[in-house]
Amino acid sequence: MVVKVYGPDYGSTKGVLLCLIEKEVEFETVHVDGFKGEHKQPEYLKMQPFGLFPVVQDGDYVLYESRAILRYFAEKYKNQGTDLLGKTVEDRGLVEQWLDVEAHNFTPPIYSLVKIYFASVLEGVPADPKAIKENEEKIEKYLDIYEKRLSQTKYLAGDFFSLADLNHLPFTSYLMNEMEKGFMVRERKHVSAWWDDISSRPSWKKVLQDYKNPYDVLKEMNLVN
Amino acid sequence: MVVKVYGPDYGSTKGVLLCLIEKEVEFETVHVDGFKGEHKQPEYLKMQPFGLFPVVQDGDYVLYESRAILRYFAEKYKNQGTDLLGKTVEDRGLVEQWLDVEAHNFTPPIYSLVKIYFASVLEGVPADPKAIKENEEKIEKYLDIYEKRLSQTKYLAGDFFSLADLNHLPFTSYLMNEMEKGFMVRERKHVSAWWDDISSRPSWKKVLQDYKNPYDVLKEMNLVN
Repeated sequence: MVVKVYGPDYGSTKGVLLCLIEKEVEFETVHVDGFKGEHKQPEYLKMQPFGLFPVVQDGDYVLYESRAILRYFAEKYKNQGTDLLGKTVEDRGLVEQWLDVEAHNFTPPIYSLVKIYFASVLEGVPADPKAIKENEEKIEKYLDIYEKRLSQTKYLAGDFFSLADLNHLPFTSYLMNEMEKGFMVRERKHVSAWWDDISSRPSWKKVLQDYKNPYDVLKEMNLVN
Repeated sequence: MVVKVYGPDYGSTKGVLLCLIEKEVEFETVHVDGFKGEHKQPEYLKMQPFGLFPVVQDGDYVLYESRAILRYFAEKYKNQGTDLLGKTVEDRGLVEQWLDVEAHNFTPPIYSLVKIYFASVLEGVPADPKAIKENEEKIEKYLDIYEKRLSQTKYLAGDFFSLADLNHLPFTSYLMNEMEKGFMVRERKHVSAWWDDISSRPSWKKVLQDYKNPYDVLKEMNLVN
């Protein structure tokens, strides 16, 4: 039975799809429409009581929290596809460190910018320039730290591509493209080279090509051009 | 060389100390005073560029992000002390799921309440009743989900004590004790039994006895009784 991924095709779900492709695991996606509130319906809440995306089903085994899912597949298929955890316990420690930096530092301000944008388009909530500025300043500050790190090692956890790099792809892509803040990456030589490297992986190109992003959904709703 | 733990003796550092005790790893603490801004000084930022607590040094190996540190020691000493990751890759997946629930759902509203309290005591910022209510409502909602889960399994990830339970101790303890919201736990039969179980572990008793909490610091500063 192939792995089922429940969620929309964007946000943290994309990290999971990316991981499954890198690990050469067969899967299918089951679309759960966040815009229609399908993640707050009893059927979905049985699998994910917090009403968040995504959930995976691997046979009888159900798992949620996107980064827990990444770790599960990276470990279950340790010797299949790309190794995403490093070779030693010290490597793995640094993968976990940078995955937690992504979770707790890097992604939250980008997510806030995306939320501000969506609230303005969908609900007409005026975008607060102060909140935008604060989030942008955080991202710039963190990218300075990334620049230093990436001047020492090719990837975040060391000289190997890992879950830590992989899970930066979905939200950095929003920042670079839909949010039109590509200059933040391009102004930093090592971050820029790292971005070119990770975003040119065939797995990411496939994810971008095969799955929607939330902006596509807004376009379908004729809310943006 | 014993492991060095840099940080204050409270908050997420306590989870790391607890883990080291459970894993029977020898360590010493190096106090970094957050109230004096020592975590923003160049020496500290060399180890932890984001200026956050804690950092560990294990020989030449330096690691930050508290949950990455927990995972590192739990894996490095897999066969020493308490096994905190479960026996199978499926167990580990659920440990990671609940550790991420703790990180992204459970702890943030408790942390917000603690911050509101400290800002009111240290800086005289009036506590916002609306913010307090919103955070309390989130905690109650999450505890309802925990209650259901803990009616099915003895611990969060299954019938074994794990990192997921361990890292709930420091912040649930604030909620129960200093924040005087013990009723939230006591009103829920299975959560209450789980709390009695995990908080009676010798490791936690030792941590509580040997290390300060931030309220002790306020007392020393004669800011509270």
